[in-house]
Order: sequence, then structure tokens, then C-alpha cells
Amino acid sequence: MKKYVYSFGEGIADGDGKMKETLGGKGAGLAEMSRAKLPVPPGFTIATDVCNIYFQNGNKVPAEIDAEMDKALGLLEKRMEQKLGDTQAPLLVSVRSGAKFSMPGMMDTILNLGLNDKTAAALENKSGNPRFAQDCYRRFIQMFGNVVLDIEKHDFDHLFEARKKKARAKFDTDLTAEDLKAIIVEYKKLVQKKTGKPFPQDAREQLTMARDAVFRSWNGKRAIHYRRMNGIPDDLGTAVNVQAMVFGNLGETSATGVGFTRNPSTGEKAFYGEFLINAQGEDVVAGIRTPHPISDLANLMPAVYNQLREITASLEHHYRDVQDFEFTVQDGKLYMLQTRNGKRTGPAAVRIAVDMVGENLITKEEAVLRVDPQQLDQLLHPVLDPASKKTLALLATGLPASPGAAVGTIVFTADRAVELAATKPVILVRAETVPDDIHGMEVAKGILTSRGGMTSHAAVVARGMGIPCVAGAGAIEVNDRKKEMTVAVKGKPLILREGDWLSLDGSTGEVLAGRASTIDADPTSGVLASFMSWADSFRGSFGVRANADIPRDAQAARRFGAEGIGLCRTEHMFFAEDRIAHMQAMILARDEKSRRKALAKLLPMQRADFAGLFKAMDGFPVVIRTLDPPLHEFLPKRENLMVDVARLPGAGIKLKKEMAERYGISPGKLKAELPKLLHRVEELHEFNPMLGHRGCRLGVSYPEITEIQARAIFEAAVQVARKGVKVIPEVMIPLIGSVEELENQKKIVVRVADEVLAKAKMTDLKYLVGTMIEIPRAALTADLVAKEAEFFSFGTNDLTQTTMGLSRDDYTRFQKDYENAKIFKNDPFAVLDQEGVGKLIQMAVKLGRATRPDLEIGICGEHGGEPSSVMFCYRTGMNYVSCSPYRVPIARLAAAQAAISGDKSESMRTA
Amino acid sequence: MKKYVYSFGEGIADGDGKMKETLGGKGAGLAEMSRAKLPVPPGFTIATDVCNIYFQNGNKVPAEIDAEMDKALGLLEKRMEQKLGDTQAPLLVSVRSGAKFSMPGMMDTILNLGLNDKTAAALENKSGNPRFAQDCYRRFIQMFGNVVLDIEKHDFDHLFEARKKKARAKFDTDLTAEDLKAIIVEYKKLVQKKTGKPFPQDAREQLTMARDAVFRSWNGKRAIHYRRMNGIPDDLGTAVNVQAMVFGNLGETSATGVGFTRNPSTGEKAFYGEFLINAQGEDVVAGIRTPHPISDLANLMPAVYNQLREITASLEHHYRDVQDFEFTVQDGKLYMLQTRNGKRTGPAAVRIAVDMVGENLITKEEAVLRVDPQQLDQLLHPVLDPASKKTLALLATGLPASPGAAVGTIVFTADRAVELAATKPVILVRAETVPDDIHGMEVAKGILTSRGGMTSHAAVVARGMGIPCVAGAGAIEVNDRKKEMTVAVKGKPLILREGDWLSLDGSTGEVLAGRASTIDADPTSGVLASFMSWADSFRGSFGVRANADIPRDAQAARRFGAEGIGLCRTEHMFFAEDRIAHMQAMILARDEKSRRKALAKLLPMQRADFAGLFKAMDGFPVVIRTLDPPLHEFLPKRENLMVDVARLPGAGIKLKKEMAERYGISPGKLKAELPKLLHRVEELHEFNPMLGHRGCRLGVSYPEITEIQARAIFEAAVQVARKGVKVIPEVMIPLIGSVEELENQKKIVVRVADEVLAKAKMTDLKYLVGTMIEIPRAALTADLVAKEAEFFSFGTNDLTQTTMGLSRDDYTRFQKDYENAKIFKNDPFAVLDQEGVGKLIQMAVKLGRATRPDLEIGICGEHGGEPSSVMFCYRTGMNYVSCSPYRVPIARLAAAQAAISGDKSESMRTA
Repeated sequence: MKKYVYSFGEGIADGDGKMKETLGGKGAGLAEMSRAKLPVPPGFTIATDVCNIYFQNGNKVPAEIDAEMDKALGLLEKRMEQKLGDTQAPLLVSVRSGAKFSMPGMMDTILNLGLNDKTAAALENKSGNPRFAQDCYRRFIQMFGNVVLDIEKHDFDHLFEARKKKARAKFDTDLTAEDLKAIIVEYKKLVQKKTGKPFPQDAREQLTMARDAVFRSWNGKRAIHYRRMNGIPDDLGTAVNVQAMVFGNLGETSATGVGFTRNPSTGEKAFYGEFLINAQGEDVVAGIRTPHPISDLANLMPAVYNQLREITASLEHHYRDVQDFEFTVQDGKLYMLQTRNGKRTGPAAVRIAVDMVGENLITKEEAVLRVDPQQLDQLLHPVLDPASKKTLALLATGLPASPGAAVGTIVFTADRAVELAATKPVILVRAETVPDDIHGMEVAKGILTSRGGMTSHAAVVARGMGIPCVAGAGAIEVNDRKKEMTVAVKGKPLILREGDWLSLDGSTGEVLAGRASTIDADPTSGVLASFMSWADSFRGSFGVRANADIPRDAQAARRFGAEGIGLCRTEHMFFAEDRIAHMQAMILARDEKSRRKALAKLLPMQRADFAGLFKAMDGFPVVIRTLDPPLHEFLPKRENLMVDVARLPGAGIKLKKEMAERYGISPGKLKAELPKLLHRVEELHEFNPMLGHRGCRLGVSYPEITEIQARAIFEAAVQVARKGVKVIPEVMIPLIGSVEELENQKKIVVRVADEVLAKAKMTDLKYLVGTMIEIPRAALTADLVAKEAEFFSFGTNDLTQTTMGLSRDDYTRFQKDYENAKIFKNDPFAVLDQEGVGKLIQMAVKLGRATRPDLEIGICGEHGGEPSSVMFCYRTGMNYVSCSPYRVPIARLAAAQAAISGDKSESMRTA
Repeated sequence: MKKYVYSFGEGIADGDGKMKETLGGKGAGLAEMSRAKLPVPPGFTIATDVCNIYFQNGNKVPAEIDAEMDKALGLLEKRMEQKLGDTQAPLLVSVRSGAKFSMPGMMDTILNLGLNDKTAAALENKSGNPRFAQDCYRRFIQMFGNVVLDIEKHDFDHLFEARKKKARAKFDTDLTAEDLKAIIVEYKKLVQKKTGKPFPQDAREQLTMARDAVFRSWNGKRAIHYRRMNGIPDDLGTAVNVQAMVFGNLGETSATGVGFTRNPSTGEKAFYGEFLINAQGEDVVAGIRTPHPISDLANLMPAVYNQLREITASLEHHYRDVQDFEFTVQDGKLYMLQTRNGKRTGPAAVRIAVDMVGENLITKEEAVLRVDPQQLDQLLHPVLDPASKKTLALLATGLPASPGAAVGTIVFTADRAVELAATKPVILVRAETVPDDIHGMEVAKGILTSRGGMTSHAAVVARGMGIPCVAGAGAIEVNDRKKEMTVAVKGKPLILREGDWLSLDGSTGEVLAGRASTIDADPTSGVLASFMSWADSFRGSFGVRANADIPRDAQAARRFGAEGIGLCRTEHMFFAEDRIAHMQAMILARDEKSRRKALAKLLPMQRADFAGLFKAMDGFPVVIRTLDPPLHEFLPKRENLMVDVARLPGAGIKLKKEMAERYGISPGKLKAELPKLLHRVEELHEFNPMLGHRGCRLGVSYPEITEIQARAIFEAAVQVARKGVKVIPEVMIPLIGSVEELENQKKIVVRVADEVLAKAKMTDLKYLVGTMIEIPRAALTADLVAKEAEFFSFGTNDLTQTTMGLSRDDYTRFQKDYENAKIFKNDPFAVLDQEGVGKLIQMAVKLGRATRPDLEIGICGEHGGEPSSVMFCYRTGMNYVSCSPYRVPIARLAAAQAAISGDKSESMRTA
């Protein structure tokens, strides 16, 4: 028969510390501490399986498991020489949740269970402390009422506060036993009123009800949300820990507290924590009284303090990790209630890992595995000062689209951002950004949008630039004509205008009114540097490149350890103010000759950009993608033009001036030119631009675009190589669906390259021509595509969109519905969908290498900087990932972790 | 050593009739006729390989093949007792192309080669017929000059006509030898002028030049275009046939002609053809003189006629197919110059196949293989009378989007179509159609659009309705405000207005000005019926269903042999005038309650539709797809609304009235309501609607939509089943990307179904719930999806779009560029892309059946009616295809052909 209930106590235990899956983290910790003969109150753990059985069995625990629990309860009663519900020696227990992964505060806890009118009296007698006994009872009714009986906490608080006022008590501890008794009477009335039944007096029934409530809390809203945020599977279930109560509220020789063996915020090796005299556990968290720092315990209870330090030090040594512990002192005697590996910030995680290697506690491999790659983010961007954050009003929480803190004054247009940025920091606030906003984004300290997802234009561009961004903050309404944003704060609309201060936390998505202070991060800190060097030593030949479009970003990428550029999006260069006009002229041209004329003006500009990139990446490869977006993205928006053409006949001088400026057409010519412009825009209009005339398809239609870009690339390469820089150009053709397309475009690139290199007498300069794999068909026919492609780079943004038939921009409209219905395990645009998109990627890698064993394979989609996706790329046998500069260390760490985890894919890369 | 040159003549031949690949159709026919001792002038064939070698070798035939040709030439000279270029007995030859597949008129022919000033004199002496000799010489210069030397035909014609005028000759035959000599002098001057060299006098050099010109003609524009149209590979190459000349222009006892052993237009078993006395081959085709019907030959040359009938009858018997032959009578002696299987119309193909079975010439299997499924189209729709077509001006050629002929008067709006259709036939002309046009499309005889592709809205809807449609006729500009269409005819703009007559050929894409007459097709003809019954007998368990949305279409589908409905698109029902208002109310509703209220009004309407479908399909399955398109498709267009909102402040009474009518809002409320409507439309606006909030995603967001549709389906099923009809509902959830989505929607459907069936005490009514596979991810995870899906139906329209990352509507903008660059072998939206999309389909079939061996699998995309795609579906092991009603017979035939072609997939279906 399978075992479902595990007892512990008296220096022995059914389970042990490795059984987190079955006992949950807390249960495993209690068993382990019990076995280590530490002072742990005895009890038993109901296994996590029972939680799933409970739900499958129509929210009921089967009788045979109930019976098993009764046996464990019997043992506990024997150990304690008390009995649940006994009117002489009543056993009181705590009932706590405890899942495999810690979910602090997400599930429910009930203390003092077993109390009723009679046992409370018995407790009073036995302890000789009426106030203590009544305090336990009122706490119990309150917790049980809230957690098990679903009565609002507020209703209890209301009665409690009223009584406190009446008794003129400042602190809870000022209330007398009589006061507490009066409260208990009122509490019981409340229960009767809200549930239609008296407060349950049967202690065994209380236990069943409490246990089931803990199970139900696994599927509570908070818990589900927490699991989603932290990628914890829904089907793990929670264990329930039933443990004999020990009391920190027995008077001045009793206390309760929590602590860490090292500082969880900085990582500093210092005993850290706080405690309260004469209190029960929840008081510390609830902030009713201000707790004492744990160092005070050394003075107040020196023996207890020393014992606690000794025990926790041994626990840290035993678990070889920082411990987060809970303890209670009952009448001068120390009890350990919990120990677990402590959660910590990114900086702390790195410092602790490095320190513990120094202390010979863990190996370098273990150190590298100890830090969640995602946490590195906190070390790479400045952050809002938490203290300062507390003083400001939280306006909204959007998507944490690009990490880091930003503080500045609001502007609503890109032009205005440029005007004001010279004199003060600005935050660009837009409903959504468009490529035309790029100049404003570049100068802004941060970007806030009310629409768009994690991969919206604002988010992608901001991450690329390393500028903090909060995207899709739907609660905010942006009106850029009026130059104001409106948001409801406590039900009332608050209006912020240009010039008002705003603070953004791009790592959490928080938007705060006012001017917060920030704390700078130090990306080159000694601790981080050595930590990363260990990570790199495990990473093998697997490379990490950066997505960078301009020399400045490339230089930043190098600082973060990038080993080349995995994606340079040439189109971003065309949105600059001095270039967009030539680009538009190219698009409006009616024939190849005029197109070439406009392109010729762009050539020297692109050449200079590429030269800068090659220089910054001396000795490393630079992947340059030819023009990708549909041409209409470079022109004014169709619907705006339609409106303006419709308004033109009745337009006054002011409006005409406005239009003239908007379109760069003199007012007198508007009547003639505006409809023409609209006509061309109409011609270029597409129903589904994502699936339209873009990528290599532009190059097929207008070979001269590909040609001019190839010329700029190779002329730049020659120019820089002459100065002794090692240049490795890799020309990437986007949106390939069939090898014929690649053949067509490659021919142009190779012709131009060979011509330029021959002219410069540099025919030994090696370059590659390859393709993005971002369309399912390219992956499906990768064996054919590899006949022409010298490298593959997975464009997983588009590949996810096409494979799932899901537009990332439009998905935000119904993302909430999908999350509620639990359709996707993760946001597929943030975390690579390994089941679907990943399958296609694996297929393409296999097919591609079958044709061309030395095929260089990488990824340049947003997923290239997401740890689980990086690990997938590593395991799939890719040669590198490429991500935004600020995520390069994250990718380096994730790859190292994949390598350490015993993966065998290294051989695929070095074939 | 490989053989490249094959001789024939004197009752023997190096090659034979089976060697079409090597000798081309003509060469193989000549060899076979030679072996059959038929009167064939001797000669030799240069193999098709040489054509490819010629191009690979820098447009030059290698010396060793040249030498092989010289040897064959030597044999020919021996057989003819003549020598090329000999001044006593000069050998004259014809040089003709001949590819594996007949490409009539697409490549070049040169007659009388070997003539020069001296050999012409010799021919004159030898024949004693100066006029004949000079006529041959001038023809030769003219053909050689045009074909080999690239001189415009027009330049020769100009000189010839001038001389005819000068000589006052009515017919060419009226010109004397002297006239012809004068022409020759002028021709030679023209050659000197145009090429800078005299006309080549060396006969051997003439031969080389002519042969190479024939090779080059393989890559001429016409030939490439023809191959693309007919799906002939580019790398086959053409053979060159060099054959001793026989002369039909030796006087009144000579003649030349062409014929068929049966009527190629109707299939009637009647000797069919035409001839000219005293003429060479090209005269018959050129239409210089009107040829005689071949029956006249019986009177003019009875012996020749009888011999010809005898020979052609034996050829037909030998090849067991209709023969298309060429002959020449030289001085009373018959020569056969060519025989090949004759091209024929669809009706002829069916009739000939059925007749030949009756004559025991071929088996039923062969008969079924003889008819190109695509050709059946011609039997299923009325066609334009070819004679009548010739009298009308061709305005433009668009895409043949929905076959059949349509003649009617032009209307530019759907409303106007409805108004006028009662009194006269109308053709609806639109830039592009939208769902709002549906009522106008229903009443129109034909539909013409200037934009959109083969799968544009107009095309899909028209094919579904069986209404002829020409789509994307880009040469036509449609202005529906002015109610006129403009098209350039011979460089001048021609304007057609409402009420003008227009004729469309939906099978060719031709748009003609004026009123053509039509020929009705008889889809239930006896010959077709027995032909189809044979086809069905070979098809096995493979089914053919129809896509039909309304009972009328379902009834039509049954007449065409559909065995169920493979796709009913429920949304089409909502566009009807009496329903769209409720649909819009549903969309504008802000909460579930108001949505349900609007949906409740739609329920009885949908139920009635479904009841009609079930009734029409008694005993056959009916697949009903839940709502698919994004909701904004049911609302006014965003950009139009933006324009109207912008115009509203300054709008006069007339404009306001117009808007009021357009939006169904009273003029007084426009100011308040229009911005609200725009606001909702903005909320629903999508960047890429194709990849947006549609399909099952709507059902996830608004479960009540799925619920109400399920209710309508099962209430209709119950209602109809009570009347004794056998109902087999199959509910299809669209746009599934992951099994979780299907699980979510299936739960709703099953709950409603079980509830409705239980209430009606009909729980034994069997139904299926399945999914469309139209997103790559669904195919990639088909093993998981099949856990929930009871059937798969491949939606290959969307699957092609997503797999290729290519929007069918936007593709039309650059389709021409892709065709010029030879990127795709076929239009992937017409012919299933087996290499890419097909790979995904095969994978999904395999994965799906691995999970659920009896999984029912079909296809409901447009490809379900395209023969090569149907064959692919058959081979892949699908259970059925579904296509528009009019294409059902085509699919039945294609499936039969796949079955006969020895495919083994039947076992997969009956697993």
C-alpha cells in the first residue's frame, strides 16, 4: 500500500530531506531536522499526492487516507501525551501548506487548532495564563473563520479594533483576558451569522476542515497566479503539515521569529532576521508591532541566541545553502519550525555562490547552477530604490518589457522627447510606438506604452537599446493630442501632463507617479566577473552573440561579453531622420532607375554604420540581415492619410500647415500631392503585413535593394579590414520559405561581394551567406535550404507567430482569456514553445546538418535571451544564441547551466 | 557511347514510339510510323538531351555530337540520293522542334532548308517548275530570316505585300516565278541590312544555325509561358527533327493538310480535318487561303483520301487513342509527316474515352485515366460560345477564379445588383468584394474584381456558389462612386458604365465588352454519368464531400455526387441581411448577458439552416465549423469610419443622410454614436487579422458563442432525425494550435450536445467533435491533438498561408515577380505545395493515427478540388476530400486516377 502520511518527531522521521516531491519543502525540512535531532515539535505530513486525489475525488479525501491520518494523529498524541479535543490535556496543532517549491504567503496556515470552548478552558487551567489561552482561541477562530469558512478578514478586524478602542488598548498585547473573551463571543456570533452554523467545536472535524481548506488554497487565485509567474506546474499539489503547537505568546520568556543565515538582499555573510517577544508567527509578518532585529536576541535571550546560531549554521552546512528559518521560543526553550533554502535577490545570489566556493562549501559547477539566469538582470540595470518607491503612488502595472529603472518627465511625442531630452530626463509615453518614433525612443530614459505586448515595437526596440520600458499598461489612457495621460487612482481619474515626473520599473512593470531615486548597478563588479568567468569555462564552444543595429549597441554588447553580432537589422538604420526621406523617395520611385538613385544616397550611410559594427566586433562574426519590413512601414499610415485627404477640401490654414509639416509637402501642393501619396500607400497596403511583401520577397521584387545593401556591407568590410581589423561578415537573407528564394538572393550577394573584394584585391576575406529560419516551410525543407545556406539563424519571433498562427501584437487582446483558460503554459513570445515551435527547430537542425554537416546554426529571436530557451538551443546542438546586449550575461549563464546539467550536444556542434 | 542522333526511313528506325523522352513526341511518332512501313520521308532526330547540353555548353553543340549528326545526314543523303547543298541533286530538309509534351505553335520550324542561289536553280531544273522552286526559296529565306536571324516577320511581309500589289496578285499563288525572284532579291537585301551579312549560302551552315535556333526557341518567352501554364518542367529540352522535304506546293496534284481521327471538340467519331492544294504546311495554319474540309479530298484525290483514312485508322488502333496527324501529297503521292495523340476538349475527352471502351479499344481503367480531371470543369458549367467570343473586344484577362460563362449588365454595388437582378442578368464589378457584398454576389450571374487572387473573398465565395468569377483583373480600374470602370484598349481608355453589357469567362479569366452567347453544359449527360460511375468504382472507400454553407448548395452538391458536407462555414449565414444586425449587436455587447441576448435571436435562424443541410445530406456526414472570422469582419471598416468621423463636424444634410443609411444610425444620433462605433471598431482592430482573434480563440474568449452554435446544431439534428432522416453531425473547431484549446471547446460542445440529446431522448444519435488542422503547430503536435479530436480536416488555405508565412491576398501584389523569378513551381494556393505543406500534412496524419488509429481525416481547403492535390490526399491515406460542389466530379475522377495508378494507401484508410 502506498504511504500518504509521514510522521516526524523525537529525533526520528518517516521521511527525509530529499523527499520534497512527496512532502513538500516544509515537510521535507521538518523530517530532516527531526532526524538531525534538532528541537522540532513533532507532527506529521500529508503527502502532496493527497492534494491531487482530493480534487479528483470530488473535493474529498478518501476514507482510507483519513484512517492513515488518524493513525499518525494517534502517534502524535502519544508523543505529546495530549489528545486532540481532550478537556484535560488538549493537543493543539498548526496546519500548514507546503509545496515542492516554496510559494511564500500564497497558501494558508492555521494555528492553534484543537481549541474550543472547553479546551480553551483547559489550556487556561494548564498554563495558568488566561490571557494566553484566550489569545490563542481568538486567533484560532479568526484564522479558521477566514481560511476555512471564507469569512472576510476585514469582518474580524473590525470587531477586534472596536474592542481595542473600547478598551483603550494601544497594542494587541494590551488587551486583557476578559477583553479577549468578549472578542471571542463576538467572533462566534459573526461565524454563526455568516455561515448559519455555530463555530465547530469538534476538534477532529476542525482538523479535517482545515486540511481540506489548505488543499483548496492550492487552487486559489493567488496561488495559481504565483505558479504562473514562476513557472511552477499546476499538478504538483501541496502537502499539509500538522504539527504540535509551541507557543511564542506565553509571555516575556517566549518569542517567535524568522531569519536567514546570510543577507538575502545583498548576500553579505551576516546572521539576518527579526523576532517578536510574546507573539505568534503571523504577528511578525503582519507588521502589527515592529519586530526587533535578531541581534537583539543575543542580549534578551543569550542562550537561545547561541543555540539558534549553532543550529542554523549547521543547517546551512548540511544543506550547503543559505537557510531561511522560522523559530519559536516557548518559555525559554527554542523550537525550530521550518528551514528551507532562502530566496535571494540576484546580487545576493551571485555573491553567496561566489562566497560559498571560497568557503569550500560548494563547487564552481554548483555555484553556476545556484543563480537563476533571469536574476542576473537585476545586476545589469539600475533599479528603483525600494525605499523611494514606497513613497510614490503606484499608477498601474504593465508588462515588464525592458528591465531597469527610469525616472524622468513625461513627453507624449518623439519630437518633443528630442527637444526636451537635452535639458532634462524624459519618459516617452505613447499608446504604442511606431518606427517613426525611433528618434524619440533613443533619447528617452524610459518608455511607457498603454498598448502592446512583450514583443511589441516599443518592447523590442527598448530591449535592443537597453532602455527600460513598461508596455501595455492598459489602465492608462494616453491622449497625445491633449498631451495628457489619465489613470484611475482609487476610483478617481488622475491626469498627468507633459513635464510631470514619472518613475518606471522595467523589471516589474510598475508605473509610479513622481520622482523616485535609483540605485546604479555595477555590471563589471569583481564578484560578477569571476562568477561569469566560471560560467564561460563550462559553456564549451557554444557562443553568445548580441542583437545590435548600431555601433553604440555593439560596443555595449562587447562589454557584456558578446562574441559577435547575431542580428543587425539594417532597416533600423533607415528610420533615422536624415535617412527616412531617401527611403521614402526609394519607395515612391516608379522605376528601377529612380529607385537606384535614392538607394545610392543611402549607400554611404549604411556603409559607415557597417564599418562601425565591424570595428566594434574585431575578430568576431557580424550577421547582417538584408531589409526586412514591408515598405509601407516607412510611409505615413494609410488611415491617417485617408482622414487627411477627406479633411483637405474644408481645411483651414492651420490644419493645412499641420498637414504640410506632417507629410513634408508644401501647403500649396497638398491638394495635388496628398492624394498621390495616398494612392501609393493604398497600393502598398496589406491585409496581413506580417505575411506580406517583406523580407527576401522585397529582394526578389527589387533586386537593387539587396544589391545596394551587399555593396555597403562589403565596401565597409574592405575599408575596415584595410585598417587591420579582422572582419567576418555573415549576410543573412530573411523570410526564406524555399531554397529558390535563397538561391535568387544569394546570387546577388555573391556577385556583389566577389566584385567588391576582387576590386580591393581582398579575395581571401571570408564571408558567409545564410538565412533566417523563421517560416515553418523553411524548417520543413531545411535539407534543401541548406544546399544554399552557409548558416541558419532561427528567427523565433516570426517562427512562433507563423507556427502558432498567432500575431504577437494581436495576441495581447485576448491573452488574459487564454491565461484564464490555462491554454498555454507560458507566454510563447517570451518562452520558446518547445513542444511545437521547438519540434520544428529540432527538425530543421537535423535536416540542415544532414545536408551540410558544418552548418553554423544560431537563434536571433527574442528567445535567445530567455534562460529555458537558451538551454533548449544548447541541447538542440546550435552553435550560438544571440540576444539583446543586456541579456548576454543571462544567456552565457543559461548555456553554462545546460552544459553542467550533463548534456551531450557538444559533439553536434563540433561535427 | 551515348547515342544522340536517331535515323529513320525506308521502313526502319533507330528509335521507336516509346522513346518520347529522348526523341520528343514528333520524333517518336516518326520513328514508329517508319517502323510501321508508313510513307514517311526519311530523316533523323537529334535527342532532347542535346538541347540541355547546348545550353550548358554555352549555347554550342559539342563537336562529337556534330559529327554524329553528320553521319546521320550522310545516311539521309544516301537514302534520298541527294546531297545537302549539291548543285545537281540538292537535298532539302525541314527542321522542326519536338518536345516530350506537345507544345503546339510554341517553338520553331524551318522548311526548305538547303536552298541557296545555286540549289534553287538546281531545284528549278530538276522539277521543271520554276515557280515552285522560287516559291520554296523565298519561303525558306523568310522562315530562316525570321526564326534564325531574328528579323521581324513584318519586314518580310511588307516586301511581299508590296510586290503582290505591284503584280496585282490576289492570292500568293497568283505570283509568277519572276515575281518571286524579285522578292528573293529584296529579301536578301533585307537580310544584309538587318544582319550586316549576306544570307548564308552554305547549306551545312544553314542546318547548324537552324538546329541551334530550334534549341534556343525552347527558352523563348512563349515556350516558357506555355510550360508554366501547363505544368511542363523546364529541363526536358526539345528534340530537333531533320527530315527530307516533300512538297505540297508542286502544283494542283500536290497538297498539304492536318486532321484528327475523331472530332477533338465534341468527341464524335468522325474523320476531321482540312487541307490546301498547292501549299506548304504553314499555309494551312496561317489562314492565307481558306482550307477545304477534309471530306473534299475524297472527291479531289480519292485514292489518297482512302489511303489516308486507312493509315490514320491503323494509327488510331495502334496508339489506341485519337490521332492528330499532318500529311503532304507530293504529285499524287501521300506522305505522313506527323502523328500524335490529339488534344481535345473536356466533353470530347469523356466521349472518346467512353466510346473507345465500347469499341474494346481500351479498358475502363484506361478510359478513366484518359480524362484530365481539370477538363471536367468544361462539362459542368455553361461556356461562352467561341464564335460569339471572337466578335467581342477583349478588355482584360484576370484570374480564372470560378469557372463558367457569365453574361450580364454591369453593376458596381451589391445593393444595386439586388435591385436590378430581378429584371435582367447582372455582373457585379468591384475592386474587391467584402462579406457585406454577399447578397449582391448571390444574385449576380458573374463577378469581376480588379484586385485579389484565386483565393480572394470573391473567388472563394463565387466558387462556393458556383457563380463564374474573374478576379484580380488588374488592368481594370473600378470607381464605384462614379459607377464606372476604366480599361485601356489599344492604349486608349475605355469607360464602361452601369448597365453596359459584359461577358466573363471564368474558366480562362477573359473579360469581354458586350453580350456573348453561351452554350449550356449538361452535367447529367449519359456519357458523363457512365464515365463517372466507372471512376467511382475504382475510388474505393475514399470519399468526396462538398463545402456547402446553405441548403441550396448542399442540394447541388448531392447532384454532383458529394457524399456529405466536409465544411459548412457557419459565419456565412450571419452575413445575410436579416442577421447581420443581430451579429453586430452581439459584438457591440459589453457583457455576456447582452451577448447571449443577441445570440438567442440568431439561434433559430442557424437551427433552420442546419436542419436544411442535414435533410439534404440524409445518411451522409455534415461537418459544421464553429464561428471562424474575427469579429471586426462583421462591422464597418475602420478606415471608412475614421474618415466619416473626421467629416462629420462639417457634414451637410446629404452626407449625414448617407452616413445614417450606411451605419443604420439616425442622422440626429450620428454625432454621439459614430465615435462610439469607431471606438469599438478600434478595439477590435488587428494588425494581422489572419493571425488574430478568430477561430477557436473567439470561443475561448466568448464560450457562449460556441455554446449557442452547438445548441443550434443539435437541436436541428434532433428535429430532422425525428422525421426519419439519418443525421451525422460532425462539429469542427477551427484554428486549433494546441490540444488545450480543443479540450476547452470540445467540453462546451459535448455538454450542450448531451444535454439536448438527453432531453430529446436521442442519446443514441452519434456525433463527432474534431478539428481543422490549419496551423503548423496543430500538425506538429497532432499526436496530442488527436487525444481530443475525433476527426481532422486539413484547412489547407490557412495551413498554406501559415506554413509559407504568406498571405494569399497580399501575395497577388508580388506574384508576378515570383513567377518571373521562377520561385514556386505552381501557385501554392491553387496546387498544394507537397514539398512543404504536404510534409506537414503527412506528419500530422501519421502522428494523429498513432494516437487514434480510426481517426477520420479529410481536407476542406480549396485544394480539395484540385486534381494533383486530391491525388496527394489519396496517397497520404486521408478518408476524403471536400471541395466546392462544382468540383466534386473532378475530385471523384482524380481520386479514381490515384487509385488506378497502383497506390497502396487504401489500407491506411480502413485500419
